[in-house]
Amino acid sequence: MDKQLNPEKILQTGMAFWPSKTLLCAVEMDIFTQLAQGSESLDSLRERTGLHPRAARDFLDALVALGFLNREGDRYSNTPESDLFLDRKKLSYIGGILEMANRRLYPIWSNLTEALRTGQPQNECKTGGPDLFGTLYADPAGLKEFLSAMTGVSHAANTVIARSFPWQGYHTFVDVGTAQGDLAVQIALANPHLRGLGFDRAEVAPIFQQYAEATGVASRVAFMPGDFFKDDLPKADVVLMGHILHDWDLPTKKMLIRKAFDAIPAGGAFIVYESIIDDDRSKNAFGLMMSLNMLIETPGGFDYTGADCMGWMKEAGFSTMRVEPLVGADSMVIGIK
Amino acid sequence: MDKQLNPEKILQTGMAFWPSKTLLCAVEMDIFTQLAQGSESLDSLRERTGLHPRAARDFLDALVALGFLNREGDRYSNTPESDLFLDRKKLSYIGGILEMANRRLYPIWSNLTEALRTGQPQNECKTGGPDLFGTLYADPAGLKEFLSAMTGVSHAANTVIARSFPWQGYHTFVDVGTAQGDLAVQIALANPHLRGLGFDRAEVAPIFQQYAEATGVASRVAFMPGDFFKDDLPKADVVLMGHILHDWDLPTKKMLIRKAFDAIPAGGAFIVYESIIDDDRSKNAFGLMMSLNMLIETPGGFDYTGADCMGWMKEAGFSTMRVEPLVGADSMVIGIK
Repeated sequence: MDKQLNPEKILQTGMAFWPSKTLLCAVEMDIFTQLAQGSESLDSLRERTGLHPRAARDFLDALVALGFLNREGDRYSNTPESDLFLDRKKLSYIGGILEMANRRLYPIWSNLTEALRTGQPQNECKTGGPDLFGTLYADPAGLKEFLSAMTGVSHAANTVIARSFPWQGYHTFVDVGTAQGDLAVQIALANPHLRGLGFDRAEVAPIFQQYAEATGVASRVAFMPGDFFKDDLPKADVVLMGHILHDWDLPTKKMLIRKAFDAIPAGGAFIVYESIIDDDRSKNAFGLMMSLNMLIETPGGFDYTGADCMGWMKEAGFSTMRVEPLVGADSMVIGIK
Repeated sequence: MDKQLNPEKILQTGMAFWPSKTLLCAVEMDIFTQLAQGSESLDSLRERTGLHPRAARDFLDALVALGFLNREGDRYSNTPESDLFLDRKKLSYIGGILEMANRRLYPIWSNLTEALRTGQPQNECKTGGPDLFGTLYADPAGLKEFLSAMTGVSHAANTVIARSFPWQGYHTFVDVGTAQGDLAVQIALANPHLRGLGFDRAEVAPIFQQYAEATGVASRVAFMPGDFFKDDLPKADVVLMGHILHDWDLPTKKMLIRKAFDAIPAGGAFIVYESIIDDDRSKNAFGLMMSLNMLIETPGGFDYTGADCMGWMKEAGFSTMRVEPLVGADSMVIGIK
């Protein structure tokens, strides 16, 4: 038995913060944005990005071996994926989530053990700072990074929701906690008959507006400022919440589901989506670790299974519910009133 | 083209510090050592390991989804690999490298960008502390963790070297920088005709001795204290250096290769092994990132290709050289005098 077992997967996972940090630093140092202008030699790229001679070749070759750069002779270039998703100047850029992971999540995850022992968050609030959202909304640059991070982590799922949900039966929607607005934008782009609202705190308005204009849907997608703790949700045929419910404790989750129920007409739909955990809690590792991230980031947030969510929806009065997979670790839970 | 490309691998790699830290914390909290005594319910395991109720289920289920635990009903148990390699009470334990990764490497890797920009180490020496080896040798508990870490990261390769090298032609060997001595032990176990020495700093002696006795080879494997900067290497038919050369700058690498040459007779062999980089520097990502680890940990260390190493061996006078793969990212370079 000893001979057939090998520790490869254990060692690879245990050291997986190496490839992770290597990629995160490459995003931070704008390697992919530089190379989006064309292939470049080691010396030229090193000088343009401020890499030290001792480090440059190992770092860039590690990115080649990890599959994020190509190299021919002495010249480095982006892979098609890196060029599309990691060039900061493209609208398809998803590096926001990686910038946030690099600047905030990697360091605070070093306190995971303390979170596991105490149940307490480990972010800025630990040293007397504000809570997660207080931190984010207090600093315009940080807020923009966070909102862009949310687009990065949700864009692929947003396009699936925009195409796969039976939108032909509806006329209006509201995306609650809309952030930069990518979900609302993708739905509007794929469904010219729909008009939608992005609902979020007032600080988000200029960032949402800029994005809606850049993507050409500003005539059909508007921003409505509000606070889902104090205000009712705007009325619409379909209410969406992406990466919202997991931030909060169970009473808050139920309150938000109830507000969604109240905002839609009979026959209206409520779509909840994020990295919904599989009902057996044994397959969606990312969803389970996202819940650990909520442990680290929030006082009471947690991720949950499709069955959990459908139970809460039923309690709020929804008549039929279903779970549909989106992409990667993401699924959506749909409740019909 | 846009539709065929997807950002899955980028996001998965960028967030790979999550599974990494989840496993590292499980080792730190002795989850696998506890479960080596038998399967256990959520509540019981939570109480025995000090997990907070908010965190326990997500954490343990994440370990299930990542493939490091099994769960039947409410009871968690080790997978065969976790039981063999992550139970601290077994000689087959390789968690030392993960303990070191958790306590030292994860936090200092958060400064990778600074290392890439400055070329300077980011470990204890950055805040005025001693260099890597000064740090390690100054603290007996830390030293034991480091030496055990070296066993964890090298054990699988050690057993391959012990079996695949043509040992029948030789009678004696010396393992330079032997640490806990696992390479010497595995060679002795697989080759009853050999006698060997472990060569390392005097502080290592008791840890080496204890391990040689526990594994039953103490009558054929002895410890010799020494400093490879000041002393000649002990004479032997075969000199081995595992995970040694990459710690040092080029002049030191060449000095050590020269000392190995001087220690063996004509026809003798010098075996260098670690995560040797492929000659094209485009495949062995682990070896390239190990070189970034040397950037972070040492003033001048770096990893290198088989061709690099054979070039230095040739310069020192070796007549024939070859590279042979071991396991995972590891290869050995063999030089015959």
